[in-house]
Amino acid sequence: MSVGRIMVVGVGPGHADLLTPHAANALRQAAVVVGYSGYFPWIEELIVGKESIALPLGQERERALIAIEHAANGRSVALISSGDPGIYAMASVTLEMLGTMEPKRRPEIVIVPGVSALNAAAALLGAPLGHDFAAISLSDLLTPWPVIEKRLSAAAGADFVLALFNPKSVRRDWQLARAREILLGKRAGATPVGVVRNAYRPEQSVCVTTLEQLDVAAVDMFAVVIVGNSTTRFQDGLLLTPRGYDIAPPGETP
Amino acid sequence: MSVGRIMVVGVGPGHADLLTPHAANALRQAAVVVGYSGYFPWIEELIVGKESIALPLGQERERALIAIEHAANGRSVALISSGDPGIYAMASVTLEMLGTMEPKRRPEIVIVPGVSALNAAAALLGAPLGHDFAAISLSDLLTPWPVIEKRLSAAAGADFVLALFNPKSVRRDWQLARAREILLGKRAGATPVGVVRNAYRPEQSVCVTTLEQLDVAAVDMFAVVIVGNSTTRFQDGLLLTPRGYDIAPPGETP
Repeated sequence: MSVGRIMVVGVGPGHADLLTPHAANALRQAAVVVGYSGYFPWIEELIVGKESIALPLGQERERALIAIEHAANGRSVALISSGDPGIYAMASVTLEMLGTMEPKRRPEIVIVPGVSALNAAAALLGAPLGHDFAAISLSDLLTPWPVIEKRLSAAAGADFVLALFNPKSVRRDWQLARAREILLGKRAGATPVGVVRNAYRPEQSVCVTTLEQLDVAAVDMFAVVIVGNSTTRFQDGLLLTPRGYDIAPPGETP
Repeated sequence: MSVGRIMVVGVGPGHADLLTPHAANALRQAAVVVGYSGYFPWIEELIVGKESIALPLGQERERALIAIEHAANGRSVALISSGDPGIYAMASVTLEMLGTMEPKRRPEIVIVPGVSALNAAAALLGAPLGHDFAAISLSDLLTPWPVIEKRLSAAAGADFVLALFNPKSVRRDWQLARAREILLGKRAGATPVGVVRNAYRPEQSVCVTTLEQLDVAAVDMFAVVIVGNSTTRFQDGLLLTPRGYDIAPPGETP
């Protein structure tokens, strides 16, 4: 039996207009499409008539396993991942699971990059990531909390812009408040913060606030929280982290 | 005179298939297209017949200024940015320059997110960013080197995966070697490293090595260098940073 192929496809943050032609082609080529049911609304038109397997949220291993089993049976499988598969998404778990199989049975794997929630949230906030940044997941389901604290503290101390993923969930309700406390120990209360929920989806919300004013209770699992560095400022309701250029007003020679 | 509009458009890493429909629509709607000449090859078909202004590399301020001037004169301008405009690209400098203008003369600004060099390099390497990561530019043209060293050291000490941008240029030839030295002080020589040049462009190259073996001389300005964390490993010629799931082989119940 010939071995198939898994394409781990980044379908962008949540709108068909942010899904690349590369991803669309991968979905069209696939015989089977596997993914979290919540990601199907903006890809539906591309997968009409295909075998599609929609699974609940949180079952990353199960989704990867189903995709691998179909591919090991010789089929071409698209495993869909919201945003970019490489950033807190399906690339890692799928590759890791493939590594447990006998090499000769392993399907070929292709990662199709996408516009991540990070890119999307930043675009909606202006230019918060204008300089070096660190991405940290606040989920301690898979990572011990002390490791997360150490990273928060190190990144805040070295003046990185911070992008906080998985800030909260129904079961994880205290981590964001604790993270805010750690960051307030290293960064001013007036530091600009952006909270983007459901970027480019119908339920999108964008909130601009400060580290001091951040309403932790209003943040949920659909949010990405971006915390500025010491140079980040507000401009016209957006967040701006300067790159460090010497900027002269238009019309004046720099 | 009515004030125009600037769309800072992420055109992806270097292939039309990684340019989103959102970006393509923005280019089609624009009356004027401004950008570095090297980004035009994969957008040419979208801008046939438009006024297009191609400028040399490195003139970010000049590009932003030209775009702003056209927009202030009432035109709809696409300022193209490779990758994602928010990550070491045109969003920040454009917003900053707008901030120097009288508010009533400021054109509207829209940031169109894209697939960044980060997403692209990671996809070609497998799953190197499978966990928390830090993005650091090694260019000390705009940032004092001690700040960069502090960030390298902090991120390495807290076991972030590192994505190093602008690792070298003709004028900046020692920074990557120094960064490697700093990282070797905190991380094993066998740490997996991926070097991706010109992702998804005709000249693409992908090299997988270790921190110890990294050939600094072979890296240039077109490369993104990804350095694994303490858990990153090689698998089938790719880089894998596990997320922390408990992984059972397919066929065994986790």
